[in-house]
Parts: sequence; C-alpha cells; structure tokens
Amino acid sequence: MNSRIIEFLKATVGAAQVTNELIDLISHSTDASGFRHRPEVVVYATTTEQVSAILKMVHEERIPLTPRGAGTNVSGEAVPIKGGIVLDLSRMDQILEISLEDRVVVVQPGVIYADLNHQLAPLGFAFPPDPSSGKVATLGGNVATNAGGVRASKYGVTKDYVRGLQVVLPGGQVMRTGTRTMKSSSGFNLTQLFVGSEGTLGVITEITLKIAPKPTETYTAMATFQRLVDAGRAVSQIMRSGAVPSVLEIVEKNCIKAINQNTDLNLPEVEAVLLTETDGFVKEEALFQMNKIIETLRANGALEVRWAETAAEAEALWSARKSSYPVISRLNNTTFGEDITVPLSKVPDMLKALEELGAKYDLILPTVGHLGDGNMHPHFSYDRTNPDEVQRVKKAEKELYHKTIELGGTLSGEHGIGLAKAPFMSLEHDPVAMETMRALKKMFDPHNVLNPGKMNLEACHG
Amino acid sequence: MNSRIIEFLKATVGAAQVTNELIDLISHSTDASGFRHRPEVVVYATTTEQVSAILKMVHEERIPLTPRGAGTNVSGEAVPIKGGIVLDLSRMDQILEISLEDRVVVVQPGVIYADLNHQLAPLGFAFPPDPSSGKVATLGGNVATNAGGVRASKYGVTKDYVRGLQVVLPGGQVMRTGTRTMKSSSGFNLTQLFVGSEGTLGVITEITLKIAPKPTETYTAMATFQRLVDAGRAVSQIMRSGAVPSVLEIVEKNCIKAINQNTDLNLPEVEAVLLTETDGFVKEEALFQMNKIIETLRANGALEVRWAETAAEAEALWSARKSSYPVISRLNNTTFGEDITVPLSKVPDMLKALEELGAKYDLILPTVGHLGDGNMHPHFSYDRTNPDEVQRVKKAEKELYHKTIELGGTLSGEHGIGLAKAPFMSLEHDPVAMETMRALKKMFDPHNVLNPGKMNLEACHG
Repeated sequence: MNSRIIEFLKATVGAAQVTNELIDLISHSTDASGFRHRPEVVVYATTTEQVSAILKMVHEERIPLTPRGAGTNVSGEAVPIKGGIVLDLSRMDQILEISLEDRVVVVQPGVIYADLNHQLAPLGFAFPPDPSSGKVATLGGNVATNAGGVRASKYGVTKDYVRGLQVVLPGGQVMRTGTRTMKSSSGFNLTQLFVGSEGTLGVITEITLKIAPKPTETYTAMATFQRLVDAGRAVSQIMRSGAVPSVLEIVEKNCIKAINQNTDLNLPEVEAVLLTETDGFVKEEALFQMNKIIETLRANGALEVRWAETAAEAEALWSARKSSYPVISRLNNTTFGEDITVPLSKVPDMLKALEELGAKYDLILPTVGHLGDGNMHPHFSYDRTNPDEVQRVKKAEKELYHKTIELGGTLSGEHGIGLAKAPFMSLEHDPVAMETMRALKKMFDPHNVLNPGKMNLEACHG
Repeated sequence: MNSRIIEFLKATVGAAQVTNELIDLISHSTDASGFRHRPEVVVYATTTEQVSAILKMVHEERIPLTPRGAGTNVSGEAVPIKGGIVLDLSRMDQILEISLEDRVVVVQPGVIYADLNHQLAPLGFAFPPDPSSGKVATLGGNVATNAGGVRASKYGVTKDYVRGLQVVLPGGQVMRTGTRTMKSSSGFNLTQLFVGSEGTLGVITEITLKIAPKPTETYTAMATFQRLVDAGRAVSQIMRSGAVPSVLEIVEKNCIKAINQNTDLNLPEVEAVLLTETDGFVKEEALFQMNKIIETLRANGALEVRWAETAAEAEALWSARKSSYPVISRLNNTTFGEDITVPLSKVPDMLKALEELGAKYDLILPTVGHLGDGNMHPHFSYDRTNPDEVQRVKKAEKELYHKTIELGGTLSGEHGIGLAKAPFMSLEHDPVAMETMRALKKMFDPHNVLNPGKMNLEACHG
C-alpha cells in the first residue's frame, strides 16, 4: 500500500487508529473460518464521517476494503481475501438509545450482542435472536450476516428485528433506510437489501433494532431417541401440531460420544437427544406448549423424556448442547461446521442423508442443530494433513449441498455465504437470481472494492 | 393500441382473456383511490408463461403495463396512469399448496386473503396480517403493497410472512427468490425488494407464505377517554409496559359522531374510544396481557373500561370500529383516508396535531387507527365541488405529512405510496435513498414500462 494512502488514513481517523504492524495484520487476516489472507493495513473507524471519507477514497483509488466486527464469522466473510484495507468497526461500540416506548434501540455496529441484552434484561425487554457467538459477536456482524440462533423457530432471526440502518455506500454517500416506526409501506425495502449482504454493498454505521418484551416463564425438557430419523420425525410432527417451541435443539450420536469423551456429563449413548424449551408470560402458556411437545415426542418414539424441575436442572440439560462446539473442535486438527437448512418436513430425510454420507465417505459428522427451524450444523472433523481424508471431506461436502438443495433447502441458515459457500451459490439460486445479485453488486459497487471475492458476485466484474 | 399488439395478446392468453370493451376499460381505470386513468386494453393472465411473454413484449415495445389484483388499493397503485395495458392477475387464484409441516402455503397472486384464512382456520393455522379489505383483496396485492391490518402490533405485516416469490421481470425473465425454509442467510434478500414495490420492479406470479398457529383464546375490551391525548398516552404507556396487545384500535370523536348519526350503536360521545384484544393458547396468557393493559388504561385517565364477557359482546364492541369506514364515507361526497404512522412515543403528539390541523383549516378529520403500531387513518372528508375546501384539504394534507416526518414517522404504514403520496417521497427519504430507489427501478425496468408514474421513481428516466 503506498504511503500516500496510509497518510490519508492516518489523517482521517488519527494515527493511533491505523496499523500495519505484523501482529495486527495477522490477527485481521482470518476470522472463525479456516480462510486466511493478510490485509495491507488495518483501520479502526469511530464515526460515520470517517467511514464515508474512507469509502470515497477506496472507490476512487480502487482499493479492496473488508469491513469487520468481532471476526466471529465462520464462512470467511471478514477475511480480506484480496488484501487491501480491513475496516475494523469494533470501536464504534456505543448503544446510542434505548426507547422502551418506541420498542427500539439505536446502536453502533460494534456493540456486542450480549452487552445489548445485558442492558435490556432488567427492563423486561430483549433483542431475541441468540447467536452462539453472542458474547463476542458484534451487532453489525449480526446484521451483515443475518445471524440466527437457538430461538429462531419462535422469534425469527436478525432480519426480523432491523427497522432501519445508516449505511455508507462505496463512493462515500451516507444513506438512511427504513424507519423508527413499527411498520411502513413507503418505498423499496432498502434496509433488507443490506441485511445479510455481508458488507458487499455498503458499510453499516448505525442500526435501529426492534426489541420485544422478554417472556418470564420457561420450561425445559430433554428427550432421547434410539433412532436418529425418529428424532427428526418428532420435530416435523411438533411443528405440524401447531405447538410453539422457543427452542428445539438436537445433539446427535457422534456429538454425544465426543461430549462423553471430553466431559463428565455422562449422556445416554443414544442416537439423538432433543432439547426443548417453551416460554410465555404466564406458566400456563409455557406449560401448555411443553405438554403438546412432549405428547408428540412420546408418540414419535422418544425413549425417555426428562423435565427440568429447577433452573439448575435446566442448566444441566443445556450443558450438553453448549459443550458441543468445544468438544467437536477437539476431535481432530480441523473442524468445519456446516449450516444447511431444510424445510421442516425434510428434517428426517436430511438426518438420514447425513448418516449415509458419513458411512459412504468414512467420516464422522458430529451434528447439532436448531431443528425447530430446520437448521443443522453437521461438522466435518478431519485431519488436514491427510490428503485422502481432505478429498473425502470435499466430496462429501459437495454431496451435502446437492442433497440440501434437492430437499428444497438452503446453503446457509444463519452463517452466511462468505468464501466457504461462494462456489455453490448457483446450486441454490437460479441464473436470473444470480444475475440480479451481480447487477445489484455492480450498481452499488461498480469498482468492486467492498469485500470483494465473497458470495460469488464477481462474474459481472470484467 | 395498435392491432398487432392486441393480436399478440390474444394469441398469448386467448381471445376471451383480452378486452377493450368500454365497460372493462372503465372498471380497470381506477381502484379504491380517487385517481382515474383509462387503459387501452385489459389482459387476464393465468400462467407465469403468459406473464413472461407479455412482459417481454412490453419491454421491447415500450408499452406501459400496470399489474392489478382486486383493485382495493387506496393510494392509486393499480391505476394505469400512463394508459397502456392493465394486467389483471385476479384469475390466477389457486392455492397451490398448504403444508402444515413446513408451515408454509404456496399461492397464486389472485387468491383472496380471506379465502386462504378460511382454508387454514379449521387446521388451526392462520396467515395473520388482517387488512380491512381482506374479504376482497388479493394476496398478490397484499405482498405488492406490504399490507398491514389490525394485528400488526403483535403479528407484524405481510413482509414478515413472505418467504419466497416467483417474479417475472420486465424483459420476461422468470426468477425465484427466497426459500421454503424457516430461515436462510444465502445471498441478497431479493424477496423483500419486491414486497412493497407496488408492481414497479416485477410481476409476482407465485408466493410462498409462512403461516402461524392460530391462538385459541381471546379477550376483548373497550375504554373511553374524555381527552384524545390521554388515549394516545395510554397507548404509548401500554407498549412501554411490555404488554402484548393483539389489537389496539382507536375511534376518535369525529368518527364516533358519524357512527352515532348513521347507526344505532349509541356510542358514548367522548373524545376517543380504544378497542383492545389480547390472545394466547391458554386463557391465562390472554388474561394476563389484558389485565396489564387495563391497568395502564386506568392509570392514564380512562373514563370507563368495558370487558366483553361473551363472543356476542366482543362482536358488539367491534361493530363500532368496523362501521367507521362506511359511515365516514357517507359524510361528504369525497373521502380520502390517510395512513400516517409515527413512533409509538409520538402517538399523543400526532393526535394533538390532528386536532390542531382540523381547527386551523376548518375541517373535520374523523380518525381511526391501529394505535398499537402507531398507524393512524385520519380521513379528509370534504366537498370536492367547493374549491376553497379543496384548497384547505390540500394544505392540511401537506402539513400533515410534514408533521408526520418531523415526528420521525412514515408517509404510509400499510397503504403504500402509489400516486397519492408520490410527490412527498423525498420528504421522508433522503436524497441518497431516493437516488438508490431510482437506480433500482432503472436496473430492473430500464424502459420504465412497469407501473410507471408511481412512487416518484422517474427522475432518472430521461
């Protein structure tokens, strides 16, 4: 990067907010995915004006720029694969306003998910999506990837809560989208064009989020299944019954085994454990829903159903689910968590397909998932120094995506496309849709400076 | 319209589905707004292929085309203001699929809102948005205008239920957007670009909608207020309290007067009546919410609170609200219902502003509204043969929009922009947002053939 650019960046944000120290470049070269590419410089912006000046400059100078929050992305969205500048927004971390009357909060993109809910909880409100990375992930990243979580089946995902944005476009123009009101039918929905766009169309500098009253009553239960597909069928039937679970999670046998090897939780060695929660503002509502769910679990072959009688017991049930990620990542030197999502009726088929895929390619696929919304995270856990195993993983992954689409599913429920799934975009999206996405990218970012290389958007950029 | 075009249309859809009889041209020249312009020909399409062929032709021949459902629009969205073709989709009226397991329905755009819910109700499910025009309005129109209704405060609006679309673009390309899954983070949100776009970007030929379990328990109550602003403050405070009303409607004094003059409902002649409902799957939940609401109503100056003890009593309370539109439209020879929406905290200010506006311009502004989401429908009811009164209405309307935006509101909560509010778009949307909307229009519809003249999108079209 030439020194004129570095000087411009220092003049714009202050010298202390610009770094090209090796350690900073390395720490900004990757995210929670396996992808890695070093940027030439890292810039911390703290105001919209700074972001605007920087985006104007990169647009004019044709310099790649990758926006970044906490870097908890698992699909490579925050990896500066074309080098250039990483624009780190984690220092734009102010909660600007909490308005219970308007049921909104206004935040900067660097605010941590959990910090917002920590402020809201004593007020009886919440921002309900609950990503696993919530203790460290930023809200800007949540919005840019349309993050989900364990409560999506009842409460939806990030997009369902974004009422408005302030966005800086390549070129530096600052735009407000959406409204602070509960509803609006005024003009195109520009807000949702940026939600889930992975920083490829603009940089989000302010977010207006809807908040919701926080239910006060919860029931938690766990069910074990001897057969994986029975667990899947139980989930489909629960959703069909009209029951409203707030949580409906699966932990599958390879994952159970890993948990038992690495913890003293001593889970029953069955093919699947389902963890479910219901909630409400009165006990009767949460109980009604839980009874309906348990009836369906029993009718679909649950071996054992265990209720949590106390908060401590509920916490114990959650431990199994929460321990999954750390124990899975200890299984081998490389782990990649998939994020496929299928229609609810296809959950049993997908679980069966995962078993078959593991057998076919001699791989274990420890799986957890938010089954109440059809979202599964099978993990490829393998030895990346073994070329044969790497090949088998690659083949299995491709087959997994084909199967997902064949079942009417989507490549990503909540992690986004980034680099990891970019080559597979056209499996899911038809040629007209792909062409439309590329045309949108070109319209907003004609010189392809903003997070280039992501989402397979580049066929149009000569 | 030259005969070659007419012949092409007849060859495409069949001669019986093409008409330029005067009576058909007149009936397709307007909608439920006051706007009126005659098309040259009306075409009924029944398949996506027909729509594609027609859109390809109009794109090539530069002929204006306005898509239309039931024509219940109140902002002029379905008025063919540039003449040309009206593409009537009301005969694409098949419910293609109801899947309780996947919690979706797949419908053609001409399906009537109420017909869908009529099918879903015995199954224990619903498509919750509840537009007043639901007995006749089509789902295609609901999606194209992002229609709301009386339950938006708890259940959201149409956009919150659209999972995927099949859309035909100008030029004839057919595109699928979105997924059938409960969630997805795969690519740009093309679906929401079409929701609320009023038929200016593409023609919707198939809709995948999320459905939700239908609550079985309901409580209904009514409260009277001597002062309008107190009613507004009560609403703000209810939402602030974390209560979850499923309905929270206002009927204001000018409207009450009109109802009493035209019906034998004999409402108390107060400044405002609030009608509220709560719901749930168990009585205790609905009751808990209702108690919380009533406590807040009493703390904010409600004169009288009346509970409906039976379904018949609830129906009686609803009669007042439901009779509003017919009685308002009988007040004078011209009625225009506004659709302004403000943040919940500004509801009292907006109600006060409406009183002042009426006094200043010597107009009555009978008002109803979905106050639980800040959406108010003040009605200009006037004599269009009186030039002075027409002038006063125009001035008052302009001032109303300015006040709405000043309070952080939006021009339209649920009716859309169409022709009625097109001149005021830039009051609400900043220059970069306006430029972006126009660029989107130009990208999708370079020859401006699709529903031209709406939403103030034309500054870019030479």
